[in-house]
Amino acid sequence: MFEFSLLQSASTGTRGRVGMITTSHGAIHTPCFMPVGTQGTVKAMTPEELKLLGAEIVLSNTYHLYLRPGHERVKKLGGLHRFMHWDRPILTDSGGYQIFSLADLRRSFTDDGVEFQSHLDGGAKHFLSPEIAIEIQEALGSDIMMVLDECTPYPASEPTARTSMELSLRWAKRCLSARKSQNALFGIVQGGMYPHLRKEYIESLESNFDGYAIGGLSVGEPKDMMLGMVDVCTQSLPHDKPRYLMGVGTPEDILDAIDHGIDMFDCVLPTRNARNGELFTSTGDIRIKGAEYTDDNRPLDESCTCETCRHYSRAYLRHLAMANEILYARLATLHNLHLYIDLLRRARVSLEENGFPEFKRQFFEQRRSR
Amino acid sequence: MFEFSLLQSASTGTRGRVGMITTSHGAIHTPCFMPVGTQGTVKAMTPEELKLLGAEIVLSNTYHLYLRPGHERVKKLGGLHRFMHWDRPILTDSGGYQIFSLADLRRSFTDDGVEFQSHLDGGAKHFLSPEIAIEIQEALGSDIMMVLDECTPYPASEPTARTSMELSLRWAKRCLSARKSQNALFGIVQGGMYPHLRKEYIESLESNFDGYAIGGLSVGEPKDMMLGMVDVCTQSLPHDKPRYLMGVGTPEDILDAIDHGIDMFDCVLPTRNARNGELFTSTGDIRIKGAEYTDDNRPLDESCTCETCRHYSRAYLRHLAMANEILYARLATLHNLHLYIDLLRRARVSLEENGFPEFKRQFFEQRRSR
Repeated sequence: MFEFSLLQSASTGTRGRVGMITTSHGAIHTPCFMPVGTQGTVKAMTPEELKLLGAEIVLSNTYHLYLRPGHERVKKLGGLHRFMHWDRPILTDSGGYQIFSLADLRRSFTDDGVEFQSHLDGGAKHFLSPEIAIEIQEALGSDIMMVLDECTPYPASEPTARTSMELSLRWAKRCLSARKSQNALFGIVQGGMYPHLRKEYIESLESNFDGYAIGGLSVGEPKDMMLGMVDVCTQSLPHDKPRYLMGVGTPEDILDAIDHGIDMFDCVLPTRNARNGELFTSTGDIRIKGAEYTDDNRPLDESCTCETCRHYSRAYLRHLAMANEILYARLATLHNLHLYIDLLRRARVSLEENGFPEFKRQFFEQRRSR
Repeated sequence: MFEFSLLQSASTGTRGRVGMITTSHGAIHTPCFMPVGTQGTVKAMTPEELKLLGAEIVLSNTYHLYLRPGHERVKKLGGLHRFMHWDRPILTDSGGYQIFSLADLRRSFTDDGVEFQSHLDGGAKHFLSPEIAIEIQEALGSDIMMVLDECTPYPASEPTARTSMELSLRWAKRCLSARKSQNALFGIVQGGMYPHLRKEYIESLESNFDGYAIGGLSVGEPKDMMLGMVDVCTQSLPHDKPRYLMGVGTPEDILDAIDHGIDMFDCVLPTRNARNGELFTSTGDIRIKGAEYTDDNRPLDESCTCETCRHYSRAYLRHLAMANEILYARLATLHNLHLYIDLLRRARVSLEENGFPEFKRQFFEQRRSR
């Protein structure tokens, strides 16, 4: 089951939208942020904590789960929801992004699919095709599956971007034909930084996908170029389907993309940066290992209501980080995810109240105030 | 503030006792298990989780906190309770055990105290004396402080054990004189594996300590010898003070020691072993990385009521462990600590109900059943 209701799409000074996705595992209010749970767990968090933070959906990585513990095993154990004890919706990627982007992976690809070697299992050979990508995601029991695509690198010449886009288009159609389940399936718009290629993809794709992701962005291009491509895509995409900007981004990037009509986001920034000592706050970012926090008895973010900010000082967080304590990763991840999920919630409210442009302006200004 | 009420000391077939310690940070029901929070955090756990598990007191390590972040800093930041967000009692060791036992630490000691070099701060020299050990523990704001002692190695000749015991005795008295606070202070009985030396220590020590720890056990001696020494000590120690067996042990060790009249325990086994993949269950121990758990959809321990056992399968825990996920360390630690704290709770109840010997027999039998 998958339904998208566009609740609000016209608002002064923005193309931002408010919507709701309904799945058999529950509803997702959009715009939404999806925490990344690469290996069947959002690193350092329990599902209960994610729910308390307000997460309505998580993303999990097909590539990692295919290799370990294996999608057939997850299926036998009752599916990914039961395996990881998460009863809300799950979106899975197709596995393609990891295969194309992991630097030390040997791979060779044809129109049929891609053969690759993983280092996890001693260099055994694996093969991924559009049909297999769907089979794996159906075995996992994903609520929202993604088509297999090729993420066009940046920069790429127009002929290269065209070849890549056309391959992704053929693969997207094969994914649609391969689907045996009721699970939702999203297409992924490619086309590099060429507006006409992006439009061509969107026009060529049959309209019976449940939603549309925009791929191949945030791959090194200037931010203006990224937003320009987002704009090209959201202008052309059907209004009644959710739009998902893959792998983006900073809090500012997300507000900008909402402004251009994006509904769904995922990004490793809040979780990965937390573990690396980078904490997002309402007044700017903090590198918690800095010596200036050694004796700082204030909370990370004085206006934040998360558990971390209510109970612990910067000095304690720094101590835990310096001592490589697991509790550091927990408290830092909790805080960063709280900021992201709360930001999306506040963005939704401001859209509903016709105040998004002012909300965004104030947020940007405050973030520069440190 | 420190009070100990011996609520029950006579029961059929056991020397086990039931009591209650009252401190200004709350009560501790004995026999009790104290989770170890070496660096101002019980690894992988939040204080809220420890409370939900029923932990009434934690242990923290003076040596580690002295070196990082520093006891004066902790004091300025409001004391250890505030620093680590734990408002229940804290027991601190004296720092001596780490200095004497860390293999790669350079040290030289005299009657005055011990000089040592730490690798944490580039080999800077530090000095610890009985007076400084108390000063540090008072700065941390410990509810129960321990005297500085020398942990006699095993095996040790009688003259060596005597010299060591006499040094510990002189240091214990100096600690008592150095105390400026109302914080409780425990003596630590040394004397190696020589009953007369243990008795001599106990008789020589003035009776105005708040409790008595038994040190220098579980250092490689046979288990019978350990229990024999525990017996010698608990027979000689004053009845109206709590007895604490330091660093012990397995669930079986703990029940045996309760049987011999011990009231308090600490041990890294449940937390450290959890992180290393060793899980305690009511029917024996599990090495979760074993291939036999790959497809095992059962909970870790079918009779356990902890969050881990209620929500996650062995197959999932194994997957998390193999993938080095932080959530593994969390769920494993939670389970092992639940088993320990619940074991102590059940031991208390069985003592109160005059059924400890049968409880212990059944627990041992079930643990051998796997």
